[in-house]
Amino acid sequence: MPRFFVTDGIQTDKPLVLTGDSASHAHVLRLRIGDEICVCDGQGQDYMGTICEMNSRSLTVQITSSQLCPGEPTLQCSVYMAFPKADKLEHVIQKATELGAYEIVTFPTARSVSRPDASSLIKKQERWQKIAQSASEQSQRGRIPQVVVLSSFQDALQRASHSDISILLYENEKQHSLRSVLTASSFRTISLFSGPEGGLTPEEVQWAQEAGLHICSLGPRILRCETAPLCSLSAVLYASGQLE
Amino acid sequence: MPRFFVTDGIQTDKPLVLTGDSASHAHVLRLRIGDEICVCDGQGQDYMGTICEMNSRSLTVQITSSQLCPGEPTLQCSVYMAFPKADKLEHVIQKATELGAYEIVTFPTARSVSRPDASSLIKKQERWQKIAQSASEQSQRGRIPQVVVLSSFQDALQRASHSDISILLYENEKQHSLRSVLTASSFRTISLFSGPEGGLTPEEVQWAQEAGLHICSLGPRILRCETAPLCSLSAVLYASGQLE
Repeated sequence: MPRFFVTDGIQTDKPLVLTGDSASHAHVLRLRIGDEICVCDGQGQDYMGTICEMNSRSLTVQITSSQLCPGEPTLQCSVYMAFPKADKLEHVIQKATELGAYEIVTFPTARSVSRPDASSLIKKQERWQKIAQSASEQSQRGRIPQVVVLSSFQDALQRASHSDISILLYENEKQHSLRSVLTASSFRTISLFSGPEGGLTPEEVQWAQEAGLHICSLGPRILRCETAPLCSLSAVLYASGQLE
Repeated sequence: MPRFFVTDGIQTDKPLVLTGDSASHAHVLRLRIGDEICVCDGQGQDYMGTICEMNSRSLTVQITSSQLCPGEPTLQCSVYMAFPKADKLEHVIQKATELGAYEIVTFPTARSVSRPDASSLIKKQERWQKIAQSASEQSQRGRIPQVVVLSSFQDALQRASHSDISILLYENEKQHSLRSVLTASSFRTISLFSGPEGGLTPEEVQWAQEAGLHICSLGPRILRCETAPLCSLSAVLYASGQLE
């Protein structure tokens, strides 16, 4: 069934009118009056309905039922990634969304080479949010992860500490593994932190430990800054039964 | 300790002479006589030694000890990826190598849009192998995964069927999950198959089943063709304790 995202709220007591990109997309798909479609509110709820009116600029849908989107993980896994260079953040936003991340949070660290200034950040954030929306649609998710930009590493630590489990992935950690933390407790929300190209400073790792984060290794291979968040996200989703 | 790859064999009964890129790299690192370095044979063995001679074009190393590379997984996980479009295969070679893949095998399928011809394939394969070597060095692995190109899907199925477990990741599979297969048996070698952008045909999936592959889902989200191999590789490495 064709899926459409509506981000400005859905009222089920009256027919729903879709315009703009959704109307164009319906024409590309050659949909007609009487066809069934699914409208997602971007928050994890799917609304099934029938097209009852259609013209070149809009389509009207009579909603018949709704359900929680079956493509949404029940685990809320937040990916916290330090500002990387170039287009690596865009890559992680796209892939983390596909895999099932709840949100993507980015923030500066001492060794972050890239620190977008306030004026360019507004445009970038719009672009990042569009990448998340497009990846949600493509992967048949019902929720569009929010891309959150924080102004400091400390803000990020404080925010992450509200999760049931918060983990910092650190290449110099030798004792604790991701698996030892995941198997020790049950959780419904989890935050996965990772550093920039040059790694985190020992001081930053200590702050994370003081904020209650578990410091974990991903094994003896040194992963690039864009690989570690996606590897750990895949592992967490697998471990918690979200890949089945 | 700085690491150097030597792909044409190491003899430990006489001093080892490194030239070319290795010699240039040693100068960039400002190494001197008496410094200790690690020389990897690209097959998983690390040789530790001391620089005993050095000039602008070569360095001579007295090998003092050797060990199995601690960065190498003990699990042999082969990634079988159908020819994708554009640079997606290069991305998967780089990331799968970092993560710890044993080898990357690519092959045509019915819906593969890209099918490199024989003449361009030689150059491409050289380039792919260089990407694997560079990712091995960067991630501190001791082995360079081979990039293998096969001429048909059937050849790939037959080759994969020699693994202890072979799995085909298929978006239309609803019953069996990766986890159900991984937890059902022990294994030392595993092959992970995934299709091209347009997916595999039902006929290809049937051939895979007849060849003894387990057909598995990665969950309800539709992953892009370059995401599925890396997600499943991360999950398999996690499940088998190779990320700790």
